[in-house]
Amino acid sequence: MINGEKFLEKPIRWAMIGGGRGSQIGYIHRSAALRDSNFELVAGAFDIDPERGKDFGKKLYVDPDRCYTDYKSLIENEAKRSDGVQAVSIATPNFTHFEIAKAALEAGLHVYCEKPMCFSTDQAEELAQLVKKSGKVMFISYGYCGHQMIEQARQIIARGDIGKVRIINAQFAHGGNSAAVEKKSGAAAWRVDPKKSGPSFVMGDLGTHPLYLIEAICPELKIKRVMCSKQSFVEGRTLEDNAMSIMEYNTGAIAYIWSSSVNAGADFGFTFRIVGEKGSIAWDAEHPNQLAYQIQGQAPSVLQRGAGYLYDEARADDRIGGGHPEGLFEAWSNLYTKFAKAIDKSEKGEKIDFWYPDVNAGVEGVKWVEKCVESADNNGAWINY
Amino acid sequence: MINGEKFLEKPIRWAMIGGGRGSQIGYIHRSAALRDSNFELVAGAFDIDPERGKDFGKKLYVDPDRCYTDYKSLIENEAKRSDGVQAVSIATPNFTHFEIAKAALEAGLHVYCEKPMCFSTDQAEELAQLVKKSGKVMFISYGYCGHQMIEQARQIIARGDIGKVRIINAQFAHGGNSAAVEKKSGAAAWRVDPKKSGPSFVMGDLGTHPLYLIEAICPELKIKRVMCSKQSFVEGRTLEDNAMSIMEYNTGAIAYIWSSSVNAGADFGFTFRIVGEKGSIAWDAEHPNQLAYQIQGQAPSVLQRGAGYLYDEARADDRIGGGHPEGLFEAWSNLYTKFAKAIDKSEKGEKIDFWYPDVNAGVEGVKWVEKCVESADNNGAWINY
Amino acid sequence: MINGEKFLEKPIRWAMIGGGRGSQIGYIHRSAALRDSNFELVAGAFDIDPERGKDFGKKLYVDPDRCYTDYKSLIENEAKRSDGVQAVSIATPNFTHFEIAKAALEAGLHVYCEKPMCFSTDQAEELAQLVKKSGKVMFISYGYCGHQMIEQARQIIARGDIGKVRIINAQFAHGGNSAAVEKKSGAAAWRVDPKKSGPSFVMGDLGTHPLYLIEAICPELKIKRVMCSKQSFVEGRTLEDNAMSIMEYNTGAIAYIWSSSVNAGADFGFTFRIVGEKGSIAWDAEHPNQLAYQIQGQAPSVLQRGAGYLYDEARADDRIGGGHPEGLFEAWSNLYTKFAKAIDKSEKGEKIDFWYPDVNAGVEGVKWVEKCVESADNNGAWINY
Amino acid sequence: MINGEKFLEKPIRWAMIGGGRGSQIGYIHRSAALRDSNFELVAGAFDIDPERGKDFGKKLYVDPDRCYTDYKSLIENEAKRSDGVQAVSIATPNFTHFEIAKAALEAGLHVYCEKPMCFSTDQAEELAQLVKKSGKVMFISYGYCGHQMIEQARQIIARGDIGKVRIINAQFAHGGNSAAVEKKSGAAAWRVDPKKSGPSFVMGDLGTHPLYLIEAICPELKIKRVMCSKQSFVEGRTLEDNAMSIMEYNTGAIAYIWSSSVNAGADFGFTFRIVGEKGSIAWDAEHPNQLAYQIQGQAPSVLQRGAGYLYDEARADDRIGGGHPEGLFEAWSNLYTKFAKAIDKSEKGEKIDFWYPDVNAGVEGVKWVEKCVESADNNGAWINY
Repeated sequence: MINGEKFLEKPIRWAMIGGGRGSQIGYIHRSAALRDSNFELVAGAFDIDPERGKDFGKKLYVDPDRCYTDYKSLIENEAKRSDGVQAVSIATPNFTHFEIAKAALEAGLHVYCEKPMCFSTDQAEELAQLVKKSGKVMFISYGYCGHQMIEQARQIIARGDIGKVRIINAQFAHGGNSAAVEKKSGAAAWRVDPKKSGPSFVMGDLGTHPLYLIEAICPELKIKRVMCSKQSFVEGRTLEDNAMSIMEYNTGAIAYIWSSSVNAGADFGFTFRIVGEKGSIAWDAEHPNQLAYQIQGQAPSVLQRGAGYLYDEARADDRIGGGHPEGLFEAWSNLYTKFAKAIDKSEKGEKIDFWYPDVNAGVEGVKWVEKCVESADNNGAWINY
Repeated sequence: MINGEKFLEKPIRWAMIGGGRGSQIGYIHRSAALRDSNFELVAGAFDIDPERGKDFGKKLYVDPDRCYTDYKSLIENEAKRSDGVQAVSIATPNFTHFEIAKAALEAGLHVYCEKPMCFSTDQAEELAQLVKKSGKVMFISYGYCGHQMIEQARQIIARGDIGKVRIINAQFAHGGNSAAVEKKSGAAAWRVDPKKSGPSFVMGDLGTHPLYLIEAICPELKIKRVMCSKQSFVEGRTLEDNAMSIMEYNTGAIAYIWSSSVNAGADFGFTFRIVGEKGSIAWDAEHPNQLAYQIQGQAPSVLQRGAGYLYDEARADDRIGGGHPEGLFEAWSNLYTKFAKAIDKSEKGEKIDFWYPDVNAGVEGVKWVEKCVESADNNGAWINY
Repeated sequence: MINGEKFLEKPIRWAMIGGGRGSQIGYIHRSAALRDSNFELVAGAFDIDPERGKDFGKKLYVDPDRCYTDYKSLIENEAKRSDGVQAVSIATPNFTHFEIAKAALEAGLHVYCEKPMCFSTDQAEELAQLVKKSGKVMFISYGYCGHQMIEQARQIIARGDIGKVRIINAQFAHGGNSAAVEKKSGAAAWRVDPKKSGPSFVMGDLGTHPLYLIEAICPELKIKRVMCSKQSFVEGRTLEDNAMSIMEYNTGAIAYIWSSSVNAGADFGFTFRIVGEKGSIAWDAEHPNQLAYQIQGQAPSVLQRGAGYLYDEARADDRIGGGHPEGLFEAWSNLYTKFAKAIDKSEKGEKIDFWYPDVNAGVEGVKWVEKCVESADNNGAWINY
Repeated sequence: MINGEKFLEKPIRWAMIGGGRGSQIGYIHRSAALRDSNFELVAGAFDIDPERGKDFGKKLYVDPDRCYTDYKSLIENEAKRSDGVQAVSIATPNFTHFEIAKAALEAGLHVYCEKPMCFSTDQAEELAQLVKKSGKVMFISYGYCGHQMIEQARQIIARGDIGKVRIINAQFAHGGNSAAVEKKSGAAAWRVDPKKSGPSFVMGDLGTHPLYLIEAICPELKIKRVMCSKQSFVEGRTLEDNAMSIMEYNTGAIAYIWSSSVNAGADFGFTFRIVGEKGSIAWDAEHPNQLAYQIQGQAPSVLQRGAGYLYDEARADDRIGGGHPEGLFEAWSNLYTKFAKAIDKSEKGEKIDFWYPDVNAGVEGVKWVEKCVESADNNGAWINY
C-alpha cells in the first residue's frame, strides 16, 4: 500500500518540457510526479511565450529564472548548475519528441517521454541505443499500464491461470473525431497533420496503447507478422481515422486491434480481452478498478481492485483500499513512483528489477505503426516483422 | 402487438424433418411454429429409428402413420394425400440440408431451413434458382433477426438516425469448444468434421449469424472484398475453431467479424456495434431486449424493447409489453409468423412485402464462408467478391 | 431439459376466464399452457360481448358453442358435458377473482388464478379452506417464480451456500404511473380505483411479486411484524402509488420492499438481493438469465442460466441451453407444466411433491397488503402478524 | 478545468492531526490538499509515538520540530509562531473529533474534520456556534460530494430537470463486517466500540454519507420525521451492523437509507436513486464517472463525466477530460480546493458564495444518527425532527 511517504533521501530534481497552461496532459504529469514527494519540480520549458511561461511557473512555485522558453536553453542552462535537473518529462507535440528526448539523453538526463516516442523505427532504434549507452532511464508514457488491474492481469498470465494465450481482442476506439473537428480545434488539427503527427493518426495516438498493454501483460508474445486495413472517413483527412490490424505472434497466438477516432457515440472505447486455453480476462479503461475473470465452465467473475484475493504484486500498487474508486491519476502516480525508483537504482548502479514502459516499448509502438501503415498502403498485405 | 390469434383461415399443414427427441433445436422450431395457431404439426421425419420416431410423434399428437423415418418417404407419402403437408422445417445435421431442401422445393413445399443452407456457392445458387422457379417460400433459420430490437436497428439505419454506416464490429465468439469436447460429445464431433460440417466450423456455425444481422440491418451494404485469418487452436481439429474476417463494402464501409468457439469463459459472446457518421447502435444477444443507442456529443442511451418511443415496425413484434423480458423463443415465433404470412401470400399469388431471411441470405452465408476460407488458405490474402 | 413432449396420456381440458382480445395477459397464459401439449383450450369466457368472444375463440380453434359470455354460464354448461373442462385460468380484473375462483373450486375445477387472489384475509382463508376441502389444485399467477434462476436461488438458500439469511432488499418499482395516466387509459383507471383494485394499488399489484419470491426462495422465513409508509404522489389518487415496507421475520432476518409505480424513468425496477452470513444473491427481472452470486472475500460472480454448474433442480427447467436468452414466456410455461403435473397427481390421488405458488401464497399476499395498509393508516406503526 | 496552478498568493500553512503511518485516510487527505499547491504541510500531530511521528514527518518534508505527539501541543506551539499553521485536518478516531475540533476553532484555526463530527446533537450545536462566532471555516469530510457527477446531480435538481423530488432510495451497505473481524483488527474493533464510535456503528460510519449527498443534491428537503429498525447480526456487537431508516420530508418526499456492514459479498454498495415527477437520477460510488439519467417515456441514458453536455458547474471540477476515469482522490482534491478558497475568502472577509459540507452538515449527520437510534430503541417508532 502506497501512502505518500517518500522513499528517496532527496527528491529528484525534475523539469517539464511542454505541458504548460492549456495543456491537458501537463497537469496529470505534475500530479503524478509530485504526489509522493520523490520528485521536486525545479525547472520547466512550459511555454514558448516567456511571460506566460514564467507566470505559469510561478503558480507552481518554480523559480522564474528556471522557466525557459525552449528545451535547448533548459538543458543547456540546467547543465551548468550544481543543482540542475536530473530528469525531464516531455509533453510536447509528437513531432518534437525525438529531438528533445535525444538531446536530454545526450545531456545525461533521465527521460519520461510522451508517446509516440518518435516517427520511424530508425529514430526509435537510435534512442534505444542512446539509452543503452548513457545508462539513463527512459519511460514512455503509456499511462494506463499503471493501473493495478493491469499488474493483476500480468500476474494472471505469468502464473498460467488462464492457460497459454490464444487470442487477443482489443480496441481503442472513441468517437471524438467523427466530424471534421480539426477545422475548429488546434489540438485536433495537429493530430491529423502528417508533419506533426507522423505517419499515422489513430494507430499512433490510440492503437499503441492496447498494443503496449498486450506487451506488458503478455511479455512472451512477439509479433511475427501484421496486416492492416485503414480508412479516412472524414473528408479532407490524409491520415487514417480508423484502422483494423491483425497480428500473428511467434507462439501461434493472434490479436486484433481496432484503432478509431470515428467510433461515434463511444466515450472512450478502450478495452481488451485476452483469451487463454482455460479462460479469459477482460478490462475496460473507463472502469479500471475491475478486471473480468472468466474460466470456462465456471461462473464468470469480476476481480475488484484492492481486494484481498488479488496477487501481492497488484496489491502493492494500492492507494486507498477496495471499493473506493481509483482513477487515471493513481495509475500515472504508480508509474512516476517506478520512475523515481528506476532513477535511484540507475544512479546507484543497481539493476532495475521491475518492469516499466521502457524505450523498447517506444520502439515497438513506432515499429507497429510503421508496419501497419506499410500493410495498409500495400492493399492490406501481410507484412513480416 | 401479437396476441396469438391466428390470422389464417386454416392453419398451414406443416412437418419437421429432424429435430426429434434429444435435439435441442427441434423444440424451439415447434414452439415457434405452433404458438400462434397458424401452423399445425401433421407429420414428421423426426428420427431414423421408427419406434422412437413414432413415440415422439405421439407425444406431440402426430398421427403415427405420418411419422416417417426419412425425408424421402415423408415427401413421397405426403404428396399422395389430399391433406398432405404444405411446408417443412429442416433441422438435420448440416451436410443434409442441401439435398433435403432441394427435394422439398422440387416437391412444391415451402421450406424453413436450418443454416448453413448448404456447403458451396454452387449448391446455394441452385437452391436460389429453385426457389425462384417454384415460387415457394424459403426461410433460412437466422433466428436472432426475429428479435424486435433488430427490427428497431434496421429502422434506425433506414431512417439515417446514425448517418451513413462507416464501421461494423461484430462477433459470435463463445468458449464451448476451448477443450477437445468432440472426444466426448457427438454433437460436438460432427461440427468439427469437414464431411458433415462443410468447409468451416465457426464461420459457418457462428460467424454467419452476425453476417446476416448486418445484411438485415444494413441492406444497402454489399461486400466488395474480404480477408480472413483462421486458426485451429485445439489439437486434432482440421476445421478452424477461431477466425478473424475483415470485409470492405461497396459504400466504403468496413466490417470485422470475430468467429470463435474457443473464447474461453465467454458464455455467448454474440454482439455487434454499427457505427455511423453521427452515432452508433450496439446489441448483445444475451440481453436482446436492449439496444444501445449513442449519438456523438449526447449522453449514451439504451433503447428498451416494448417502449413507446420505438418505431412502429419494431413495436408490431411485441408480445408482452415493456419491462418483461422476451427471449429467443419470441424471436423465433416472430419469424414463423412471417413464414406463415409469406406462405399465405405466396399461395394467393400476392407479393411478399416484408423482409425475412430468404434464400439469398442463405447464399450470402455460404459465399462468405467460402471466400473467407479461400482468403485464409491463401495466407490471408484479400479475395474479391 | 424440457422439449415439449407431453407427459400426460390425455391433455387437460382447459378454459380461460378473461384474457380475451385486448388483454395483455391472456396471450402469455395461453402460450404457456398450450406450449407443451399438456393442456387443450376447449372453452372460454373470453369476453362479455358474445360476438367478439366467439370470433376470438374461433381464432384460437375453440368451438363457438363453448365460448361463453360469463364465468357462470361457462361453469354451469361445461359441468353438463362429459368432456367438460377440468381446469380454468382466471385473468379478469382483480375484484372478480374471489367469486370466480370460489365458484370454480366449488364446481370441482382446478384453478390457475391471477393475483391478487382476493381483497381480504377472510376471503383468502375461505378459498384456502375450499382448496383443502375440494382437493383441487390452485395456482396463484406469480409468474416470475418460474424462472430457472429463482429455482437456483431457492437451492442456494436450501443448501446454506450463503449461510443463514439476514437481510433482504427488494423492490418492484416502475415509473408507468408517474403522471395521471388513469385519465387516459381504462386499464390504468381500474388499478387506482379501490372498488376494483382492493385496498392497495402498488403493494397488491407489484409488491406481492417480490414478497412471493422471498417466500419461494426462503421458505423458512415467517413474518413476525411489518411496518409501512405509503404515499399517493399523483393528485387525485386515493390508493397509494408508492410504499415502503419493512418486515421482521421469526429468524431475526429483516426485509425491505419498495413498491412503486412512480419510479419515473425506470423501465421495470423489479429486483431483489438476499444477504446471508457468508454472501449474497441478487436478481433483476429484466435480465432473468443471470443471478449474481457474491461470497464475502471472493470475486463477485454471476451465474448464467443453462450453465453446467447450476443445481440439477434449476437445470431441469431449461428449454434452450446456455447463452440463448429465455424470457417471461418460458417462466410461465414452467409453471403451467407444474400445474399440469399437479393436476395429474391430484386426479390420481398422489402427493404433490414439489413447490409452486399455491393458495397459501395467495393468502400471504392478501394478508401482507392488509397489514401494510393497516400500518400505513396507523401512522407507520408496527403491526404484528 | 482544474490544472494544478495555485490560485493563492501564498499557500495556506496546514497541519494534520492523525493520519500518520498506517492510516488509510491520511494519505488521501494529504494528496488532496497538496495537489494544487494551495496548501503547504508545515506541521503535524501524526502519531503518539514521538520517534515514529518525526520519522513520518521527515518522509513528508515536515520540520521535525513541528511534528508533535498530540493535538494540544500542536495547537499551543504553532500559536506561538509567526508562521504557525492556519488550518488543520482532523483524521483521528471518532471519539476525539469533538474535542480537537473545538480546540482548533477556539485557537482560531480553520478546520477540516473527519466525520462524524461528534457524538451528540448538543456537541454538534456547540461546534456550530463556535464556527459562527469564530468566523472560521469548517469542512466535514464527506469526500464523495467532491465528485463532479454529484455537482451535476445538484444542478439537475436545481433546474427541475426531473421535476419535484418524490422518492429517494439510497444505501451504503458493504460486507466487510459480515464476520467478527473486530476480533482480529484494531481498526474494526474501535468502530464497534460505543465508547470510541459513539451511539452508532453503520449509520454514523456509512449512512451519513448518502444522507449528506441527499442534502447536497436536494438542499430544499428538510426531514420532518424518521423511523429506524436496526440490528446487530454478528454476535457480541452492541452497536448495530445493519439499519434501515425511512425519512419523511417537509415537501412530502420520502427517503429510505440502508446502512450496513454485513451486506456480505458486496464490495462497496454505496448508491442512490433520486426520483422526481418526471424522471430519476442514480449514481454508484464504485463508478463515480457516470450518472444515470432517466426521463419517463424516454430511453434511459447515462451522463459521462467530462462530457460537453454537462452543466458548467460540473465541468468546472474537471481535471482530465472525458473518458479517462477520475477517482476518489480527485473528489477529495476538489473539496480541498474549495477549502482553500473558503479560507481565502474568510480571511479577506468575503462571503463564501459556494456550497460545501459545512458544520451544519456535521450537525445534520449527528442528529440523524441520534434520531434513528432513538427510533430503533423505541421499537421502530416514528421520531419527529
